[in-house]
Parts: sequence; structure tokens; C-alpha cells
Amino acid sequence: MHRSRLAGFIIDCNTDDLDTAAEFWGAALGYPPKKLPAPEESNYVRLDTGGENLHIEVQKVDHPSRVHVDIESDDIEAEVRRLENLGARRVGRVRTWCVMEAPTGQRFCVVRVQNPGFDATAGRWED
Amino acid sequence: MHRSRLAGFIIDCNTDDLDTAAEFWGAALGYPPKKLPAPEESNYVRLDTGGENLHIEVQKVDHPSRVHVDIESDDIEAEVRRLENLGARRVGRVRTWCVMEAPTGQRFCVVRVQNPGFDATAGRWED
Repeated sequence: MHRSRLAGFIIDCNTDDLDTAAEFWGAALGYPPKKLPAPEESNYVRLDTGGENLHIEVQKVDHPSRVHVDIESDDIEAEVRRLENLGARRVGRVRTWCVMEAPTGQRFCVVRVQNPGFDATAGRWED
Repeated sequence: MHRSRLAGFIIDCNTDDLDTAAEFWGAALGYPPKKLPAPEESNYVRLDTGGENLHIEVQKVDHPSRVHVDIESDDIEAEVRRLENLGARRVGRVRTWCVMEAPTGQRFCVVRVQNPGFDATAGRWED
């Protein structure tokens, strides 16, 4: 048995100026941008949604700008297999997460547990 | 003065088979798909997130598959002008909503109020 849920949405921005991108999206959505402290997170700015069930981040990327879904799980490999069984395709591993592609073509990621609300709200899946 | 907030995310699917697309995304995210009753909504399936602050819908589209942001507002024209002042570009009006493009390139929509939680959580902006 493993668990998963929608973790949030990442606003991928093809830009050299992450701060300006985060400033736009923060003002547009009404959520203050909040730089992540860890140096390995320097390509991300979190938008402070005030909740504990959904994260929204602005990310600096090299590919074209888009928005993608993150699914969080307490067992990434089991969750990737569940999603493969639903028809998704494994694209590749990046650091701690797995990039996948939906049958309808959107890229999305399976990530480690991000939100404090995970335990209360995650779905349970038999492996 | 007008108000706005993030309404939710629309999963745009370039597909002839909206039901299968909604079935995948519903199972992937753990939210049951729920057909919208109105005939003009036949290109949409709502995913039942169990909350009243964020809607997630799967939409049949002709353009390439992607995910886009909806911003809800009690004054669409004033909200579009606010977003233009932040650097976004007006793309065009569709039925009751306005399609815009962020300075970072993502398309998004400004829509009428969708979520019951709007009054409690929307940002207030001086016009």
C-alpha cells in the first residue's frame, strides 16, 4: 500500500530573471513570493498560498514556459508504476523526483511528500 | 475597487475522447470526475476536489495539450487591466472570460467568480 495526492502546480518560466517572473505571478495570483532557503532550490520561488494542502512554485527552466502538475507520494517508485498502469509514460528521473508524461501529452512530476496536509488527505492505493 | 483570486487549474487536453482524458486525470490525482450538467459545458469535466476554494477541470481543446491557470474576479475588465499593468497581454475574449498571456509566455484566463470561497479569500485591488 502506498499513498499519493496532488501536491501543487509549478509555473515553469523560460527566463533568465526568476525574481521578475515570480513577482509577476505573485502579484497576479495575490500570493507573496517567498525564496526557498536551500541553495539547490535556487531555481524556485514559492508563492505563499497560506494553506498547507497545495504548493505553487515559480521555476526557472530551459524548456518552453508552461504550467505542470506535481503529485506527491510516500513511495515514488510505487506511484510511478500506478501511473504507468493508468497509461502515463516515465520520462526520466531528476534528483529525487520522476518526470512523467500523461496519455494526453502533459508533462508532470512525482515528488516526495511536500505538504503538511498529506497524511490527512492522501489517497491510498494497493500495490 | 475590485477583487480577484486564483480560481483553479484547467487541464487542457487535445483529444477527441474527453471522458477517457478525465478518467486518467481523475485517477492520477485521486479526484472523481464529475460531468458538468449545462450543455455549453460539454467540453469540460470537473474533478471533485472536495474543497470550495480551487476548481480543477479537464477540458477538450484543439490547441496542444497543456495546463492553464484561471483567475476569478468580480470585475473581469478591471482585473484584465490590473494584469495588463503587471505586464500581461490581452489575447481575446471567449464567451464570458478573457484569455491573457503572461510576460513569461503562459496563457491563462480571467473568469467570473467560480468558487464559494471567493468572498472570504479574494484579494482587493484599488482601481
